[in-house]
Formats: sequence, structure tokens, C-alpha cells
Amino acid sequence: MVDGLGSALGEPLFERAAIIGVGLIGSSLARVIRRKGLAREIVAFDASSKVRARLRDIAIADHVAETAAAAVEGADLVVLCAPVGAMGEIAEEIGPRLMAGATVSDVGSVKASIVAAVAPHLPASVTFIPAHPVAGTEESGPDSGFATLFLNRWTILTPPEGADPKAVARLAAFWKGAGANVETMAAAHHDLVLAITSHVPHLIAYNIVGTAADLEEVTQSEVIKFSAGGFRDFTRIAASDPIMWRDIFLNNREAVLEMLGRFNEDLTALQRMIRRGDGEGLQSLFTHTRAIRRSIIDQGQETAAPDFGRRTKDDG
Amino acid sequence: MVDGLGSALGEPLFERAAIIGVGLIGSSLARVIRRKGLAREIVAFDASSKVRARLRDIAIADHVAETAAAAVEGADLVVLCAPVGAMGEIAEEIGPRLMAGATVSDVGSVKASIVAAVAPHLPASVTFIPAHPVAGTEESGPDSGFATLFLNRWTILTPPEGADPKAVARLAAFWKGAGANVETMAAAHHDLVLAITSHVPHLIAYNIVGTAADLEEVTQSEVIKFSAGGFRDFTRIAASDPIMWRDIFLNNREAVLEMLGRFNEDLTALQRMIRRGDGEGLQSLFTHTRAIRRSIIDQGQETAAPDFGRRTKDDG
Repeated sequence: MVDGLGSALGEPLFERAAIIGVGLIGSSLARVIRRKGLAREIVAFDASSKVRARLRDIAIADHVAETAAAAVEGADLVVLCAPVGAMGEIAEEIGPRLMAGATVSDVGSVKASIVAAVAPHLPASVTFIPAHPVAGTEESGPDSGFATLFLNRWTILTPPEGADPKAVARLAAFWKGAGANVETMAAAHHDLVLAITSHVPHLIAYNIVGTAADLEEVTQSEVIKFSAGGFRDFTRIAASDPIMWRDIFLNNREAVLEMLGRFNEDLTALQRMIRRGDGEGLQSLFTHTRAIRRSIIDQGQETAAPDFGRRTKDDG
Repeated sequence: MVDGLGSALGEPLFERAAIIGVGLIGSSLARVIRRKGLAREIVAFDASSKVRARLRDIAIADHVAETAAAAVEGADLVVLCAPVGAMGEIAEEIGPRLMAGATVSDVGSVKASIVAAVAPHLPASVTFIPAHPVAGTEESGPDSGFATLFLNRWTILTPPEGADPKAVARLAAFWKGAGANVETMAAAHHDLVLAITSHVPHLIAYNIVGTAADLEEVTQSEVIKFSAGGFRDFTRIAASDPIMWRDIFLNNREAVLEMLGRFNEDLTALQRMIRRGDGEGLQSLFTHTRAIRRSIIDQGQETAAPDFGRRTKDDG
């Protein structure tokens, strides 16, 4: 099939899926749930009335609720897709209204702090299985989502010890149905892995774009004109949603600072190589880093098509 | 026209263009010279005999010379497209063979050190006009080039004081014929501008990929699997040609260390914001950086199409 998602499943895995927070991830999830028949019914809620109005227009959910509490009524799957910092409050609101036996999950980019914020508000009758689909674009909002966003990407589940294995298996099947590969790990390990594969990369991208914006010797107009030399690629990452990323850094502080410390150590060594004119050391590092990219391409997490040119090659 | 390069020019600007060093940039230049009729004849030379053999196969030049000195015989345009560190030696070799009245240029990513290495070897009868097309992909070699690489990108000319204005105008027309916008500035300013828009971005990309490769707590397999969270984008830059980049850092040392110092200052401040939980400060920076990206897109240096998804959106 064109979209690579295969054919529709038989019986839906869930009767009623509630999506709380409908930005890039939430709206992509709604779209793939419907396309793949992963739940019989989709209810959506977003804290923004503007987004709720938009959701009624684009009709990617069957119902748009006016409150998070109303959205989870009768839902056997509840997925929190709000910014990390809003999760605790939402859990407090929906806790008393959750259906017994429901699976509660999320898509947050940090896990330990979400567990700490959400778990205390949930009744013992539901199963809480934190999750993180490692996928996204630099866009945000309900119009930016698409059904194939999770295809061949990885979703990490971090079920707490003692979580109902059947519920975990069902949620894993749900994400596989959405096209994702699924891996399970402890929440704390997730936070360390994502600190290096996602959070610190975003941090240094935001940082260099900020540095370039504040220079006096080089004008902003020059930075913009000559951005195709490499800078441009960082602005893509640094255009990601500010509130989402604020919350990630506040909620994965320890792991981010730890990985940033390693980055800084290495950068100091690299700086010294340049100062000393150590061409051999530089070339050796630059050769080493090529191998990692090859593995990423080999494992389907990246396309090998040249992208700096931002234009299809031709042979003229 | 499909390629956006407009129709062919009338008379060629040059009779015989010699391209010394035929990688991504050199081979793109050969392709666009032929397609746009910018020179009547193209002679190519590369230090690698393998590349020379390949050039005979793909026939993007009219002649493949066996030495740089032979390549420049009778050429009224000579463009050095070799790695920055090789430029001085090439200049020494070709100097005595250059045709009186010829324009000598280059495409190196640094300028002051190239002027210092090349100019002393050139006879007074030629005009040396250093140039830098700010364009590229993460690929290298003669097969990676394409005729539209320079289209709508900027080429910076850094003519020394007193350079023949007619020769400068002709070289500017040449690059415009190749599809580029042209700007003129001093070599030292070029090196500062490129340090922030290209060299430091590459340096920190190489650095974080190196950091990730050496971690003990997070396996290489995890880094690769979950690279779609942002890390992946850095590996693209960090896959750029190691020798080219070694030479850039060795030859633009002062400006790179200066800009890296600014980057580090800002990163320390950002680190402190995270440590102190300064959500307002983080959000303010992350919002600020979005504006720069919008300008880059508005000025045609980037496409707004979402790219983290590495897949065309659909509305399913």
C-alpha cells in the first residue's frame, strides 16, 4: 500500500480511545487510529478552545469533548498527549472519571517525572503504561499531524513493575498497529537514552540559533543569507514547540545535565585540537562519526537522500 | 524551466574553464558550466587517479588532465575546488603555467588563509578573486554533484583591494549564470560569518555524534534506534567529508574559536536555566529562535516542508 501501513485490522483493540491534547502527536494518533481501525470510537479534548473548534472542522475524532473529564467517560484507552508540564493536573482532573479496567497512557518525551506526576492521581482499577513514540516534525498543532508519522519509528513503553501484562501487550499491539516498532525499558533508562538522542541535540540547536541571533560582528541578515552552510539545519530543530521543550528540560533535568556535561567535556577536547592544530585528531573524529550515520540509515531511521541541497539531484 | 536555471546564455563568459579538484562542488560546477554554456570548454583535474578515471566515464568535462599544471594551460578561468589544505601546493604547481589575463578563483570554505597560501604563487598577470559558494550536501565525490546545487544559494566573492573590476564583474556574472546570488565582502569578514553559519554548526554536530558514540550507559544500538528524536539530524552534518572539514578548522582557527567561545558562554547560561528550573527563560529563548527560521524560509534559503517525519504528509 502507498502509505506502508498495510491493510486494516479486524476487531478494534479498544472500544473508545480518548486523546487528551491534540497537537502534532495527538492529531497523528487520531488519524492513524481511524485509518487502521485501532479503536471503534475516538474522543478528543484540547485545553485550547481554538483547537477544539478546529477539531470540529477537520473531524479527525468522532467527538470533541469540552473537558478532559468528559472526554475519558467510558474510554477503555486514554492517551495523554499534552505538554509534559500539564500531565499532572490533567491526571488529577480525569482520575475520578476513569472507567475501571481502562488503560491510561501518554506520549510524553520524558518518563520518570510523568510517572511521578500522574500515577498518584489514578485509581487502582486502571493500568497506567507510560509510552513515548520517538517521532515528530518541527511543526505543531492539530493540522500538522499525519497518519504515517509513527511508521517504522520506535515507541518506547515503560510499564511500572507489576503492570498487567495483558494490558501491556494490548498497548504494544496498538502501537504496532499504528506502524511503530515497540521496545520496553525502565522509565529512568528511557530518560537517559532520550537525553542524548533528543534532548541535548535540541538544546544545542536552540543554543546556537540564539548565539547567532545575538552577534554584533555578524548581522542577522548575513546569518540568514548564508544559513545553507549548515546553520539552517539547526533552525529546523530550534523551531520545535517552545512550551513542549521548556517542559522537557524542566522535567528531565538530571539526565540532560549529565549528558550535557559529557558533551561539554568532548567539546573542550575538540576545541583544544583546533587550538593546537591537531589535524590527525580532527580527521579521526570526523571519520568515526560517519559510521554512525550509516548504521542509522541501514536501520531505516533515516533516508540517505542528500538533503543539504534541499532539491532533487539531476544529472545535468 | 524545470531546473529553474532559465535559458542558456549567448556567448560563453570564458573560453576555457579549468576545474582543479572534482568532488561535490567541482563536479556540480562542471555540470552547470556545460548546461548553461558558461565556458566554451571544460578541463578537469583531480589528484586521485580513481576520480580521473571516473571523470572520463561520466564525461562531465571535455578533457581530463593528468596534472594540475596541464589542466590550466590556455584556461582563462581556473577554479580551485580542492580541499583548503591543498590549495597552496596546487597554486605553486600551476603558477608558472597560468595564462596571462586569466582569472583564478576557488570555492574554499575559508578565505583569509587561502589568500595567504595561494596569492604568493600567482604571477602578476592573472587576477585572483577568491570565492565561496555557500551550498553543499552531506555527500562527496564527482558523482554527488548536480547542476542546480548553486541555484538560489549565495556565492561570496572576496576580491582583494585593487582587483580588476572587469574581472570581478565577469566572475560575478559567471556565478549568477550558475544560478547563485552574489555578494562581495572582505576575506576576514567572510571567515567570521561562515564560522557561525557553517563551521561551528558542523563542529558541534561532529561533537555530539562523537559523544553519543562513546557513552557507556546508553548503547550504540539505542542511539541508532531512537535517533529520530533529533540526533539523526546531526549525523547528516557529521557525515560531511572529514578531510575537507579538518582543513576548514585548521584554516579558520581564530574565527571558529571566537564563535565557539560565544556558543559556550550561551550554553553555560542555558545550562544554569535548566539547573535552576527557569521555565520562563527557556521558553523565551525557544520562542525567539523560531523567528529566525521563519526569516530563512522567507528568504528562500530553506523549505518549510516538514522534514523530521522524512515523509510527505497526508491527510489520512
